[in-house]
Amino acid sequence: MTREKKANLTIALDAMGGDRAPEIVVHGASLAREQHPGVHFIFYGREPVILPLLKKYQNLQNNVRIHHTDGVVSSGDKPSTALRYGRGSSMGLAIEAVRDGVAGAVVSAGNTGALMAMSKFMLGTLSGIQRPAIASFLPTRRGEVVMLDLGANVDCDSEQLVQFAIMGEVFARTALGIAEPTIGLLNVGAEDMKGRDQIRQAASILRSLSEMTDGGIPLKFHGFVEGDDIPQGTVDVIVTDGFSGNVALKAIEGTSKLYTHFIRMAFKHSFWARVGYIFARPAFKHLKEWLDPRRYNGAVLLGLKGPVIKSHGGTDEYGFSTAIGVAIDMLNHGFIDRIHREIEELPLLSEIANLKGLS
Amino acid sequence: MTREKKANLTIALDAMGGDRAPEIVVHGASLAREQHPGVHFIFYGREPVILPLLKKYQNLQNNVRIHHTDGVVSSGDKPSTALRYGRGSSMGLAIEAVRDGVAGAVVSAGNTGALMAMSKFMLGTLSGIQRPAIASFLPTRRGEVVMLDLGANVDCDSEQLVQFAIMGEVFARTALGIAEPTIGLLNVGAEDMKGRDQIRQAASILRSLSEMTDGGIPLKFHGFVEGDDIPQGTVDVIVTDGFSGNVALKAIEGTSKLYTHFIRMAFKHSFWARVGYIFARPAFKHLKEWLDPRRYNGAVLLGLKGPVIKSHGGTDEYGFSTAIGVAIDMLNHGFIDRIHREIEELPLLSEIANLKGLS
Repeated sequence: MTREKKANLTIALDAMGGDRAPEIVVHGASLAREQHPGVHFIFYGREPVILPLLKKYQNLQNNVRIHHTDGVVSSGDKPSTALRYGRGSSMGLAIEAVRDGVAGAVVSAGNTGALMAMSKFMLGTLSGIQRPAIASFLPTRRGEVVMLDLGANVDCDSEQLVQFAIMGEVFARTALGIAEPTIGLLNVGAEDMKGRDQIRQAASILRSLSEMTDGGIPLKFHGFVEGDDIPQGTVDVIVTDGFSGNVALKAIEGTSKLYTHFIRMAFKHSFWARVGYIFARPAFKHLKEWLDPRRYNGAVLLGLKGPVIKSHGGTDEYGFSTAIGVAIDMLNHGFIDRIHREIEELPLLSEIANLKGLS
Repeated sequence: MTREKKANLTIALDAMGGDRAPEIVVHGASLAREQHPGVHFIFYGREPVILPLLKKYQNLQNNVRIHHTDGVVSSGDKPSTALRYGRGSSMGLAIEAVRDGVAGAVVSAGNTGALMAMSKFMLGTLSGIQRPAIASFLPTRRGEVVMLDLGANVDCDSEQLVQFAIMGEVFARTALGIAEPTIGLLNVGAEDMKGRDQIRQAASILRSLSEMTDGGIPLKFHGFVEGDDIPQGTVDVIVTDGFSGNVALKAIEGTSKLYTHFIRMAFKHSFWARVGYIFARPAFKHLKEWLDPRRYNGAVLLGLKGPVIKSHGGTDEYGFSTAIGVAIDMLNHGFIDRIHREIEELPLLSEIANLKGLS
């Protein structure tokens, strides 16, 4: 089986990144290994604290090693600080392992800005990509949607938005297995709004690309979408700048938390509501699992020459294991090669710039 | 009672605006009148269709009149088209009624851009306010939050954001009755992000204003907030540009719809879940009412010289009556005078500009 052949996977783990590191990193690795027995792990961080934790998990006794370092990037460090002093940190060494081919992918729950800056510097961006973007899955009414950028680039020009669209499209095809993902560009739909110039320009480039028949992938550009189209699942890929993407993502996460809270309160509202809960519990357990944010943990820094996965800093071991799962999926599907190939097949950026001139 | 004294209220209704006009406008007016018996209505629109509807509602038989016009602003009209040709439309005449003092406030479920453009042109903006903003309430974990701008201004400079903060603060005090509303500026909090320049600049001006002790209102500036702080209710007023505000609002609305849908599905999931629903129904009815988007209908175009309330275009009669209720609240609390006074008491905009220079 092909899956067996690809099973020799090594993941570099930033064991010191995140609020509850290294505990949840080690525990998460153990959970991930239950799902993917062929995976290898290298834990970067303080051996004296990692080693005793490793011993707690039976399935982490082989094909696992620790690369000791005392250096840690803290959550308050600026990207520039991390770039200057973070090379020898657990995060820096884990990224270096991917650069040197020691590991296939890196997973970190640490400082996002530092992870992005160091990954960009050490791994480099794919040719044709100006700036990497942060992409993640979100649950929708009819499955999952890929949204990017979630915070790497506060402002984006039209070319960047087009690049994000292409990367998001390949990501949806490889990681979600959608044959022809549809792409939507986030905009404001009220009639008074014309949207921003760069968004309308990106739309006209994407429209041109989706009409091209000679060579390249036929992009399925849906057009503009609005905030409510994200949870609605109107399209498979939502493209936006890092400011709006971050605001939308967190607004959605916050609203989910609000509802989870309110549902809990409703079931505690009265004696009869508690009785109702007993009957409805299996259905709500199912709902809770489906919407569990830990299921969607593991944002990908797209556009880099290697797979870099960012876990939520505050996640638990289950969430961290999901992020490891994303890394494994990317390796199993040869994501980086695939996206590289897709981008090479596309009209060159200079042609995109020409299309822009036409628009 | 003071409320009785203020009871002579006349509201101009754009009877032709919205997806289900004029039915829901007339029905909504009838519902609003049940709550506020002293209110007067003028319906602007096509008399032949409005008159038969009016006859259906016993409580709309007096203190109500129709101002006939055939002109209608359609949902697809550009603001510039509305400005040029919309003066004699139902929307244009309703706004004119406020300008001429015939009515105290206007409520429309029509084209937002046209409503904003015509209101701005016909009523003018309050002195000291460069551009009006759209503000609305949203439900949170601990009550309600005022958010603005929800879509009138795609990009905003720091001065505009500061003006929005001040208007939102007064709005929260008068309409929500919060003594000292806290203000948050929407930003992205990931460590890699510095936020946009204008947002950091607005923050430093707001910080200066909140530290000023001589004259003016002491603004309670909380600092930056993120998307999840909106439903969390971290602050009473959330200030942002119209792009992010619109995206966040719709993302929250869409997520609410998603949860409503999933809760319904969960209760239909199995026989036992249905049984559970029977017991838990009162609690969920309560939850549904609290989160009902119609309860939060009625966005206010803040910064104009008269109260202009925008209802959702797709709302029903109950939602439209809520929007009328917002107009009545604004009139009862003398909102426009109050905001005007507050702004006059503030350091002049030139001083804000100086503070900006200092920042």
